[in-house]
Formats: sequence, structure tokens, C-alpha cells
Amino acid sequence: MKANSQSQNLVLKLWFLLHQVRDVIISCEDQVFGKQKLTTERYLVLAITKLSDGHVRPADLARWLGRSPNSVSMLVDRMVKAGLIRRIRSRDDRRALRLVVTSKGENALEPATVAGLDFIQKVLSPLSYEEKHTFARLLETTKHQAFQYLNHRVGIEEVEGNDITNYPDLMSRLFGGVSISTPEVRGRGGRKAKALR
Amino acid sequence: MKANSQSQNLVLKLWFLLHQVRDVIISCEDQVFGKQKLTTERYLVLAITKLSDGHVRPADLARWLGRSPNSVSMLVDRMVKAGLIRRIRSRDDRRALRLVVTSKGENALEPATVAGLDFIQKVLSPLSYEEKHTFARLLETTKHQAFQYLNHRVGIEEVEGNDITNYPDLMSRLFGGVSISTPEVRGRGGRKAKALR
Repeated sequence: MKANSQSQNLVLKLWFLLHQVRDVIISCEDQVFGKQKLTTERYLVLAITKLSDGHVRPADLARWLGRSPNSVSMLVDRMVKAGLIRRIRSRDDRRALRLVVTSKGENALEPATVAGLDFIQKVLSPLSYEEKHTFARLLETTKHQAFQYLNHRVGIEEVEGNDITNYPDLMSRLFGGVSISTPEVRGRGGRKAKALR
Repeated sequence: MKANSQSQNLVLKLWFLLHQVRDVIISCEDQVFGKQKLTTERYLVLAITKLSDGHVRPADLARWLGRSPNSVSMLVDRMVKAGLIRRIRSRDDRRALRLVVTSKGENALEPATVAGLDFIQKVLSPLSYEEKHTFARLLETTKHQAFQYLNHRVGIEEVEGNDITNYPDLMSRLFGGVSISTPEVRGRGGRKAKALR
């Protein structure tokens, strides 16, 4: 039973690691976005709204933020009051919520995304491009299996169809077609984010 | 800038995936431990207490649970009242909290761990042993880098020294020296967990 016990140890270790990594990343995000005068939650609402081209369902936001739809609704209220987003009711489906990032929201989102991208690039910098690909594949397999395990009422296809990680153009959706040069990418270059064609 | 933008896309994708995977795993855990009449938080307090041989600091629990030390203290209070754990003050350091899992706690912990191990083995089952090793290495590198980024007041060595994922004997710490046969490992075998030498 030695091999079995070794294999179980590895599985347990992975389980803990998956928790720990996200936890420490959240602590980093709080630091990164705090410096940009945004909470991580507000940043995520802005980024997801932007990435989704305004087609955000409260359930999607709630899932992303790990909060109840009710508390997400209050968060959205506060962000609307702060002028960061606007709420639009869909003409086709009155229950469907559409959110749009305002220009004030855009002005907060962009430097925060540059700072966030700089952070995540630093954290992942020891990994080669191939290792990052492998990492993404392993995470995707795990995610897919976990969704199957959950046997969500929402079909897997629907969840994955709406899944922003499947967008091949995350960067251009966030930055409106411009590639962003972060401090990490620029090395010892200047501090200001530069939009490049 | 094409390669740069592709590389940034991959990094962004990994960032989202790290969040998503942990989020969906938490949803699964709520389902798994809910069936065992434990909340995920209570399960984690029991498991961490057991793994730490009773040397649990409130700060460690708070970090694991992503909660404030204050709310962890209330959670511990409720679990003490429910007879799942006992609180012991250290003789050397009055501020240090020691927790011990009671026999009632052990009786709740063991079947929940079997169910949890079954779940995580199912979720990770498409990955080979080598892929799991690679996955753990990639997660560890990411965790280590994120801790460095955070530049925690608590030294990295201290955090990692206290890190239960570094224990080579997670299984035997949880199960007191016995290897557990889960439904996943047993295939179509019986339902009762069997202790094996």
C-alpha cells in the first residue's frame, strides 16, 4: 500500500496548495489594488464587466467574487453611486442586468490592471512559457473535473461558454486593442504604462 | 509585440484560472462536507488542528480560512461548545492557543476526510502521477513567489516551516498511521472505509 499512500499524500498536498496559492494571491491583490485605491472586489467587478462587454449576469459576478447575489447587488449599488459603473436593464429580458464601465471606471481600471498584470507576471516569472502552458492545462483539467463533480444545474457548456478564461483576447478586451507594457516587461524602463500598437 | 501580448494573455488566463479552480473546489467542498454534517470551515479547523498536532496559532487558522482572527476565535468557541475541539492555553506562552480534537471531533473528522479525499482524487484523476508532481511544483513555485511579493512581516521561512503541505506524512497525520481506502481507490468496492497497514 506504499504507492497508494504516497499517491494520496500527493493528492492531499495538491488540495492544500490549490487553496494556499489562491489565498496568498488574494493577499497580494489586496495590496496591489489597495495602492490603486480600489478594493480587489471593485477591481474584479470593473474587469469582469469590461471583459464581458457589458453582458454580466449577477450570478456570474457572484460566482467570481464568492459572494451571494444579494451582496453583489449591494456592491454594484455602491459602485454605481461612486460613478464607476452604470446599470442598464436589458430590453429583451427585464431581469437581465447589464453593466457598463463609465469613463471614471475606465480611468481606475487601466492603471490597476497594469499594476495587477505587473504583479502576476512577477509571481509567474520563474516559469517558462511552456511551463505556464502546462500550468494552464492542469488547472483547466482540474476545473473541468470539479464542475463535473458539482454537477451544476447550470450546464458545464453554459458555464464554460461564458468563461472569460476561454477568450483568446483577454488583453485586448481589457485594454481596447492596445498591448500594455508593464514595469515587469519593460525591465528597468519608465514607470508610466505605454500603449503600443 | 505579438509574442509579448500572447504571453500576457497566458499570464492573465493563469491568474483567472487560479481563482476559478479554488472557487469551484470550495463549492465542491461545501457539498462534500455538508453531506457529512460539517461545514467546510469546521472541517478545516478539525483537519488543521489534527495535522498540527494541536500546535495551532489563531493566525494560522485565520490565514487558512481567509477570516479575521476575531471571527476565527468565535468559530473556535462554537466548535468547543459543540464538543468537537478543546482549547488549551500553553504553559510557556499564555497568548499561544493550543487546540485538541476531541473524540467526538475525531469521529466527525475521519469520515469527512475519507469523503474529501474521494472527492479530490476524483477531481485530479485525469492527471498522471507525474502530472500531479508537476502541478504541485508549479503551485509551490507560485506560492513561494507570491509570499516574496507580499514581503510578509512574518518571514517566509516561518510561514513555510509551519506549512502543513511540507509534511511528508499528511495521510498518517490525519489518520494516525493508517492508510485509508477511499471509494475512488477501491473502485466498485464496498462503502465502508477500511484501515490498511
